[in-house]
Amino acid sequence: MKKKLLNLGFCFVLLFSSLGCTRVLAQEELYMGVDIGGQSIKIGVVNEKGEIKEERKVGMDNQKSPQEVIAEITREIKKFKDYERIKTVGIGMPGDINAQKGVVRFSPNLLKWKEVPLKGLVEQELEGKKVHVDNDANVAALGAYYVDTEQKATNMVCVTLGTGVGGGIVINKKIYTGSSGSAGEVGHITIDEKGPDCQCGSNGCIEAYIGEKYFIKYIENYMKTTGKRLIKEGEALNCKTLYEKAQKGDETAKEMWRFYGKKLGIGLATIINILNPDSIVICGGVSSASAYFMDTAKKEIKKRAYASAAETCKITISKNTAKLGLIGAAMLAKEGK
Amino acid sequence: MKKKLLNLGFCFVLLFSSLGCTRVLAQEELYMGVDIGGQSIKIGVVNEKGEIKEERKVGMDNQKSPQEVIAEITREIKKFKDYERIKTVGIGMPGDINAQKGVVRFSPNLLKWKEVPLKGLVEQELEGKKVHVDNDANVAALGAYYVDTEQKATNMVCVTLGTGVGGGIVINKKIYTGSSGSAGEVGHITIDEKGPDCQCGSNGCIEAYIGEKYFIKYIENYMKTTGKRLIKEGEALNCKTLYEKAQKGDETAKEMWRFYGKKLGIGLATIINILNPDSIVICGGVSSASAYFMDTAKKEIKKRAYASAAETCKITISKNTAKLGLIGAAMLAKEGK
Repeated sequence: MKKKLLNLGFCFVLLFSSLGCTRVLAQEELYMGVDIGGQSIKIGVVNEKGEIKEERKVGMDNQKSPQEVIAEITREIKKFKDYERIKTVGIGMPGDINAQKGVVRFSPNLLKWKEVPLKGLVEQELEGKKVHVDNDANVAALGAYYVDTEQKATNMVCVTLGTGVGGGIVINKKIYTGSSGSAGEVGHITIDEKGPDCQCGSNGCIEAYIGEKYFIKYIENYMKTTGKRLIKEGEALNCKTLYEKAQKGDETAKEMWRFYGKKLGIGLATIINILNPDSIVICGGVSSASAYFMDTAKKEIKKRAYASAAETCKITISKNTAKLGLIGAAMLAKEGK
Repeated sequence: MKKKLLNLGFCFVLLFSSLGCTRVLAQEELYMGVDIGGQSIKIGVVNEKGEIKEERKVGMDNQKSPQEVIAEITREIKKFKDYERIKTVGIGMPGDINAQKGVVRFSPNLLKWKEVPLKGLVEQELEGKKVHVDNDANVAALGAYYVDTEQKATNMVCVTLGTGVGGGIVINKKIYTGSSGSAGEVGHITIDEKGPDCQCGSNGCIEAYIGEKYFIKYIENYMKTTGKRLIKEGEALNCKTLYEKAQKGDETAKEMWRFYGKKLGIGLATIINILNPDSIVICGGVSSASAYFMDTAKKEIKKRAYASAAETCKITISKNTAKLGLIGAAMLAKEGK
């Protein structure tokens, strides 16, 4: 009986082989993503659809050397149960990145990272695996493209709203980094040549209005000049608390978010007029308050963008904002495999 | 003797055939370009390098129906000595064009052109030849890419300065028209949310400052408020005369051009921050006055654009501005063949 079963099994193997059933038996494709941030490093295994299968998070210590951090990352990568199956790793990181060479030129909040050949060093540790590196905004855009646009978009801009205002661009279904890797700096679109100073050296940039610290400064100034109050003494004022105030029905908080939406909308209109994308995805921590600023933003777009381009462009709020860096990094691996 | 020569000739033919010398004997590739403007239509035969081999110009009569104009164009096309050799025709035309279908949705100064299937109608007339149609700004960008960047650029923006301010984009060496064909509307980048009204329905657009009629209005207003004089009574004031005044050393005219350069520079900085191109080509009638405005524009770029992106971007003034529409149309044929 046992022998018979074995024979039957052998016949099945023969049958499947002869039918060329590799498709039926194929495992899903898996990629490793690494999202290096100022506070933590997220590492995960992601399938080709952008679904996270397993993830880990380790702390990021700014005092450690890049070599030490890289050693920790590769140690963690090797712990994943699918490590052997994975052939390609994608890494996203804030700062000025030479994506072609995989070199971190510098990273504003990680001062020890200067001219670090991240790709080369990780490849050396993960013998035989291919590594791709890009700027976190580009990587987030790629993530948003996979999980927030249902892969229907051809040309997409992802705008990240948080401490700063960043952007990443997808053109013809591929990430577009520009001629020296710094395309998508949408936070530094000038919307008023006489506007407030920006830390970039210019003034009147979108970020100089709605980057978190600038926005809070504007509100503080607004409170001083109008006498309106938003917070009690000792209370923290930041985008999170301002969002909570608006949720509780505070009219001044809502007015502040409309100011935010207006400035954002002017910038989005410029993006639409230049790039005529079919999709804009808004992500980042502050995007959670979108209910209070997107209507105003859309009014500005309607006024300032070409009608046909504005109609073509679907604007959505990312449902995966906290995971985009990780998903995008894995999709960078997929795109570059 | 005659027979011997014939034999010798026959031997040569055999020799060339057997060596597969088609490369040596190959004729240069030729394309037909048609540049439809508000005043005239330029038609020409252009080689693959963008060099014009033969050209004709016919008047454009706004009163004629699109069908009549198309009949005239195809009649002219057939008169070219290389007509039979040419397989592909490119047409550039102002307005809202569906480039994929080759349909002119509308053209602001040619009011009879509404939903005209230009590609289809011309293909019908020129049996067997393929026709490609695109917006004049996109076509000019393609022309500039071929003849003003020595084909070294990968990502290029062409900015046309004239009555309006237009733009065309080349990305990864291909013309980029966006998701609904209206990418590159750089004239409608908002540079001051409280700026002057623009005919597009918005305000504070670059065009609302430096589109010719707006710029002249600004100068007239400037003269009124400052009492400074630029022209004598009865003299015309336009970009051409303002350029001539500057050439003669008129300080007020020079000051006006610096104003022009400042507004242009703010917009160019935004283009650089978003697209990080390796080349910007400035063309159009007003570009001839560039000596009086580009220094100021470059100062704004230095202040407002990311340093690495600004350094990467070579800004040049087109040497072929009057021919870009024709050359670009032919190159559209080449790209789409």
